[in-house]
Amino acid sequence: MALIVQKYGGTSVANVERIRAVAERVAKFKMLGHQVVVVLSAMSGETNRLIGLAKQIQAEPDPRELDMMVSTGEQVTIALLAMALKDLGLKAKSYTGAQVRILTDDAFTKARILSIDEAKMRRDLDSGHVVVVAGFQGVDEGGNITTLGRGGSDTTGVALAAALKADECQIYTDVDGVYTTDPRIVPEARRLKTVTFEEMLEMASLGSKVLQIRSVEFAGKYKVKLRVLSSFQDEGDGTLITFEENDNMEQAIISGIAFSRDEAKITVVGVPDHPGIAYQILGPVADANVDVDMIVQNVGHANTTDFTFTVHRNDFAKAMSLVKATAATVGAREVTGDDKIAKVSIVGVGMRSHVGIAKKMFETLSKENINLQMISTSEIKISVVVEDKYLELAVRALHQAFELDKATA
Amino acid sequence: MALIVQKYGGTSVANVERIRAVAERVAKFKMLGHQVVVVLSAMSGETNRLIGLAKQIQAEPDPRELDMMVSTGEQVTIALLAMALKDLGLKAKSYTGAQVRILTDDAFTKARILSIDEAKMRRDLDSGHVVVVAGFQGVDEGGNITTLGRGGSDTTGVALAAALKADECQIYTDVDGVYTTDPRIVPEARRLKTVTFEEMLEMASLGSKVLQIRSVEFAGKYKVKLRVLSSFQDEGDGTLITFEENDNMEQAIISGIAFSRDEAKITVVGVPDHPGIAYQILGPVADANVDVDMIVQNVGHANTTDFTFTVHRNDFAKAMSLVKATAATVGAREVTGDDKIAKVSIVGVGMRSHVGIAKKMFETLSKENINLQMISTSEIKISVVVEDKYLELAVRALHQAFELDKATA
Repeated sequence: MALIVQKYGGTSVANVERIRAVAERVAKFKMLGHQVVVVLSAMSGETNRLIGLAKQIQAEPDPRELDMMVSTGEQVTIALLAMALKDLGLKAKSYTGAQVRILTDDAFTKARILSIDEAKMRRDLDSGHVVVVAGFQGVDEGGNITTLGRGGSDTTGVALAAALKADECQIYTDVDGVYTTDPRIVPEARRLKTVTFEEMLEMASLGSKVLQIRSVEFAGKYKVKLRVLSSFQDEGDGTLITFEENDNMEQAIISGIAFSRDEAKITVVGVPDHPGIAYQILGPVADANVDVDMIVQNVGHANTTDFTFTVHRNDFAKAMSLVKATAATVGAREVTGDDKIAKVSIVGVGMRSHVGIAKKMFETLSKENINLQMISTSEIKISVVVEDKYLELAVRALHQAFELDKATA
Repeated sequence: MALIVQKYGGTSVANVERIRAVAERVAKFKMLGHQVVVVLSAMSGETNRLIGLAKQIQAEPDPRELDMMVSTGEQVTIALLAMALKDLGLKAKSYTGAQVRILTDDAFTKARILSIDEAKMRRDLDSGHVVVVAGFQGVDEGGNITTLGRGGSDTTGVALAAALKADECQIYTDVDGVYTTDPRIVPEARRLKTVTFEEMLEMASLGSKVLQIRSVEFAGKYKVKLRVLSSFQDEGDGTLITFEENDNMEQAIISGIAFSRDEAKITVVGVPDHPGIAYQILGPVADANVDVDMIVQNVGHANTTDFTFTVHRNDFAKAMSLVKATAATVGAREVTGDDKIAKVSIVGVGMRSHVGIAKKMFETLSKENINLQMISTSEIKISVVVEDKYLELAVRALHQAFELDKATA
């Protein structure tokens, strides 16, 4: 007998039929003798509908009141699932975040979980109930309803698994696991049986939007065994996210290829090469709440240097005008920009101990005549920026070069 | 400065525009220096939508889970109103029933309020906030969400007014007060400036569905000054519900004419006239959860009597078959039924001390050649059952005979 936390996202509870399907899956686990805690999101589209309603009232909805309102989305789905479970003859009880005291700070719309009171859930589990908990929400010290921000239901699932010391936290989604890359681009892309926590972090932040990144960090911190599965398939073990490299002795050097085409780059040419210049350029950009991704500065010559960074394509115009203003004051020669770029990254814990990975990546792209505009590396990934028309070509070439279509142990 | 509790029903918060209109009305009271607590229903139609969803999952939805779900309707409107108030520059805070600890018993879907913790609301009011509370809902000792049953938001309003010792509880609805009768039938019908608590009870139970009857009882018990007003008109003082007859020295003898066309009557003919027969006939009907309204049994002759009662028209077929089964076992001659009837009642505390009211009523109806099928009286009302095609005629004739179109002091 195991204690399993299962989290289902909005598409898995989008309508009455899907809620029934979730109930049937939960019932199977119960029949096998497991204890099951279910965490649910709102029906897909519901959170956006509620936010839209709020914005009709207040252009910038009050965060406390917004949380009060959007938290109702999960409250509806947990009640419906509890009913569906009872309809199958199971014992079930639904709880809001406040009812199982998922205590958070008071940062409305982006609260962080501080603690969970697992006693009530434990009691229900021990008396044979399926416990159904609203994801995405909690309560602050003052009793106000808070929400964890988009994708927060994943975090709720992991946090409950940690609090209950569950044997496994299963994240059900509309894909059946983590792939070596996007199968829409590379049909040979293969589902990974396991992926390390750190790889997952790199993959998630690079655009493999299977899991919310915060939940992965959370799982890492509390050593929660996390598994990504499809809620639309009955078979398959999904992808297990592991926290120790030793779990994966036979791990391939490279686990996957992530990419993003939502990027734009901005280069400040001929910047006087003295301390503080990066701060002067990026300060106003950060102040305007524009996230900066890659930052590259090369060695200078003749007392000037070139400084390049990437931002989300949507922020390109805003960032350009900010940087142009700064460039004038710091005496840079000019500012150039390009929003027709894409980022391609190879990710794998294996590359730590293997030389030649970067060489093989650059060689592969060179053979395809793809020019590298920027290069950035970390312990377990190498990212390059290329002209966006080469994105698919680059991903396919790398997938083949690193033999990601071939199964490993 | 007064402390006012205002309750707005579903049609008053049916959409964004109406919620804004409510906010503007609340703002006016705030500007006058009053403290305001607002109680809201769900948007009209929302509760039914949620119940419909539940019934797709479970034919008889689990009551605890149903309450968990339908309570979200008010949670959305309170958040939206708080936003609208803030948009007008006011300080406002919304609370669910659980958050202001509207403690109820655990009779899900029809819970009764036990107590309210007014400390939090008092603190907010004293710091200049408008307090916006979800109607219709509470929380039981175990922390489970409960609802008070249909129309329960009126009860929440009155209960909050009682707990806070408010100066007045204003119930905003889609009519601007209590009328002498339905203006759709009698265009000369007049809004009553005041109506006594007992008259209101009779009017409410007789079909003047302005206020939920439980809330009126509640107001009577705690001596809450209750006023019915229109949320769609800016002017008008509505109708004040009073609790002491002395408040109405100049009160007309008759306050209003109530009626219902949703009735059906069942007569058991030739029942052996011995003790316990009424119980034997009505027992199975009550067990089947069919509400019985009027009950009339006349003096018997030849050791038998006729026994007649009325039920809601929707329950007619069910009640008939139950009574027919009973009639056979108790040895009654036959059972007859009629669902083409209507009930007309005159209501007024004044009739207690005035003779001749019944005579005038019967005389008026007689002049119109309307046959009376049943008669039933209480301290402050006289009800008659007539063929339903005479309903409008009877109401108009009585309205004129008792000069209800003429204003009193």
